[in-house]
Amino acid sequence: MISNTPTPPYYAVIFSSVRTTDPKGYAEMNALMNALAVEQEGFLGMENAQSDIGITISYWSDLEAIKRWKDHLEHQNAQREGQNRWYQHYKVRIAKVERAYEFLKK
Amino acid sequence: MISNTPTPPYYAVIFSSVRTTDPKGYAEMNALMNALAVEQEGFLGMENAQSDIGITISYWSDLEAIKRWKDHLEHQNAQREGQNRWYQHYKVRIAKVERAYEFLKK
Repeated sequence: MISNTPTPPYYAVIFSSVRTTDPKGYAEMNALMNALAVEQEGFLGMENAQSDIGITISYWSDLEAIKRWKDHLEHQNAQREGQNRWYQHYKVRIAKVERAYEFLKK
Repeated sequence: MISNTPTPPYYAVIFSSVRTTDPKGYAEMNALMNALAVEQEGFLGMENAQSDIGITISYWSDLEAIKRWKDHLEHQNAQREGQNRWYQHYKVRIAKVERAYEFLKK
């Protein structure tokens, strides 16, 4: 689903990843973290797609909300597990959305 | 592939899309536009993944480079075809990447 984010400015956290060959526990943790992210103050939406790389973009009201989510205890644990088990390589980019436009077929 | 982008700041164009049921000509146009984008001045990289939505992120040195690419004649034609044939819904977000970090398993 394309997130119905508000009028900019707001923030995007772009998480691009390459997984390891060990999927054990990943889907459960991913579902748990998605459910937890949605509950955080300042959370605006999330988009995800997976091919040879995975891209997850979460949208946030401000940098403070992003920092709180990064430091969230359960999320910290998930990040550690992710480095130990599920991710070969990832890159996180924090970006300020300045402009947005949309096309919807009639 | 995760793009090997330079140290921020730089710009990201986040293109999130839902396709129509008509794939005819899409793959060819997509390949053509990717090849053309890479050649543009200020292009820094591109990441793509496709599930129930598609996410393509292109990275650019500055807003002027993004505007030139948006206005590129062949790309304009592709955008028109995209609206007429291949996209049910899309959203474009233009964002300034302020910070980035990376994990690579040893």
